[in-house]
Amino acid sequence: MRRMRKNKPPRKSFAAIGEFAFIKKIVDASRRDMRMGLPAGIKAVVPNGDDAAVLLIKPSRSRECLAVSADMLVEGVHFDTSLMSYHEIGMKAIVANISDMAAIGGAKPFCCVVCLAIPVDINVENVDKILSGIRLAARNDALSLLGGDTVRSRKGIVISVTILGALAKNSVIERRGASVGDLLCATGTFGDAAAGLSVLSARSGRFGLGIEDERRGNGKPSSGEYGQLVRAYRRPRHRLSEAIAIAASSGRPTAMMDSSDGLAACARAISSSSGLGARVFLEDVPLSRSFMRWTTLYASGLKDPKFPWRAVLEGGEEYELVFTASRSSIAALKKRIDFSIVGEMTRGPDVDFLLHGKKMKGEWRGYENF
Amino acid sequence: MRRMRKNKPPRKSFAAIGEFAFIKKIVDASRRDMRMGLPAGIKAVVPNGDDAAVLLIKPSRSRECLAVSADMLVEGVHFDTSLMSYHEIGMKAIVANISDMAAIGGAKPFCCVVCLAIPVDINVENVDKILSGIRLAARNDALSLLGGDTVRSRKGIVISVTILGALAKNSVIERRGASVGDLLCATGTFGDAAAGLSVLSARSGRFGLGIEDERRGNGKPSSGEYGQLVRAYRRPRHRLSEAIAIAASSGRPTAMMDSSDGLAACARAISSSSGLGARVFLEDVPLSRSFMRWTTLYASGLKDPKFPWRAVLEGGEEYELVFTASRSSIAALKKRIDFSIVGEMTRGPDVDFLLHGKKMKGEWRGYENF
Repeated sequence: MRRMRKNKPPRKSFAAIGEFAFIKKIVDASRRDMRMGLPAGIKAVVPNGDDAAVLLIKPSRSRECLAVSADMLVEGVHFDTSLMSYHEIGMKAIVANISDMAAIGGAKPFCCVVCLAIPVDINVENVDKILSGIRLAARNDALSLLGGDTVRSRKGIVISVTILGALAKNSVIERRGASVGDLLCATGTFGDAAAGLSVLSARSGRFGLGIEDERRGNGKPSSGEYGQLVRAYRRPRHRLSEAIAIAASSGRPTAMMDSSDGLAACARAISSSSGLGARVFLEDVPLSRSFMRWTTLYASGLKDPKFPWRAVLEGGEEYELVFTASRSSIAALKKRIDFSIVGEMTRGPDVDFLLHGKKMKGEWRGYENF
Repeated sequence: MRRMRKNKPPRKSFAAIGEFAFIKKIVDASRRDMRMGLPAGIKAVVPNGDDAAVLLIKPSRSRECLAVSADMLVEGVHFDTSLMSYHEIGMKAIVANISDMAAIGGAKPFCCVVCLAIPVDINVENVDKILSGIRLAARNDALSLLGGDTVRSRKGIVISVTILGALAKNSVIERRGASVGDLLCATGTFGDAAAGLSVLSARSGRFGLGIEDERRGNGKPSSGEYGQLVRAYRRPRHRLSEAIAIAASSGRPTAMMDSSDGLAACARAISSSSGLGARVFLEDVPLSRSFMRWTTLYASGLKDPKFPWRAVLEGGEEYELVFTASRSSIAALKKRIDFSIVGEMTRGPDVDFLLHGKKMKGEWRGYENF
């Protein structure tokens, strides 16, 4: 249920420093520690700071790597039980983690560890539903649930999932591999999940965006006029099979990540990791029919006129693949999966968002926790 | 800062069902899912429900296993920033996880993934201190920090650590391996951490146990008359080197776990996993000089006269090894590490706590989150 933040928090607080600065600190620290930390036979191929860390186990015998990634979801920050079912919350927690395995180069996830913090007064059926959602999503991708920890929380549910996957060393695709002139590509469409959240919010009447109230659906995610948008938010899919299809191919991507923090965040992260800039051509960003219909019908009623672009560029919670590829490999990639070309990599350092050649005003960044 | 619970929560709530029942459900579910979940080349040696899950990777080529475990710590449930420093909180989160690696048979931990949920108004220096504690504890055991996730929490800090370790297949020691007549053994002393928490609580004046207020120390964990107790609570140590020393030895333990949930919980878990019962001889449970001094001086002032036994049997947050071994292997084990014999395994199913042959009244269980 995360929403784009308007007001900056007070200085000196953790929020003022920002999640990215903190992550950078962890990354820097662990890069230093990495040299000493791994026993003989285990080598870090990708330390971290990417969608997943990748370890090479027994390099002398095999090129098989272990990919590790983790996500934490907090009730009231990342999800709201009035907007999604408990079952869907559980599913989404797993899908988000599988998406990280996809993003690092199509790692085949084989197990996950789930930690749950649960308020003492929660109804046991709801915990059961979270669990059933976790199990269903895990089963859908033949992922085993290795247990974890279940503890009491003081407020709200917290779900933390760590996922392990296997991939060949030459399948790994980091964020930092893009070159000048590479094209920026993306699977799927953008903005649907953010629009779906907005539809749900308006329906629940709790934080409407000025959109006229709709008749409440029957509770199924496909219900209502904007079922596809609601479904994109509540039942997102990952792109693991697409990632596997392109990661080991000949004309493989040069850099890749998932769009969980939004398309703008992807463009920025690939650019900065690769020491480049980028131009995103907004007219080329794929939009779904439902999203355009919703925007068209409700645009005049939006409190924030930039909301559609905000949904497309910063909405996140979509688990599309965003990747770069050399111009010469596009044709080969197109034979394997469907995707759109949405921009190109430049010498940088700026990352610009252009609509028919004209820069869009605004600092498009993407979701930040703080 | 967890304390022994007095009042049962209302029925039907999650708390009424209990953590153990819930864990059992996850374990059962994942045992079922396990068959399909793991790709060729990866086999579950210990599915889960133990201190760690253990996976055998590429069994045809190597006997090296991957151990996986996770813990979640919630502010106000598992720790209190008025009783421990942020640095110590970070350290303890790692030590608790390394202890799980010890408990499964001395797995050599090589990396961990940390998820942190942090309230938006926390001072950045404090987050830094948590991180420095995590890093220090990781460095102490040559463990790399593979990043993870940092998110916003609505209330309090939540730390979730997943740890990965490597161990040989024949080093794995599960909880279920005990036989009738095996002796129940334990490293270290018991009750110190719970007494330390009580000392700190009395000092802070927030939830005194009827103990006379002490002069507040200078903040260092070693300060004050009961420095050793306070240190046991705030700066616990794990027993990884001891576990490594005995796990691969000839007269190796038949079952093992760590005492993070208390000695009583260990006796019960090893018994039930092995389909046995146990007798714990309370007069043989090792107690520290500080603990006995504290008990002697303050026993009369305690609101709960059973508090000393509660600290010893149910206190937990001590990361000692509790294991079973055949009588014939005790001498060989004694050559490798220091430990005490505290009981014996019986046909069961009862787990009895005997003081000089007489059953101690009370349902000694150990820490439960719910």
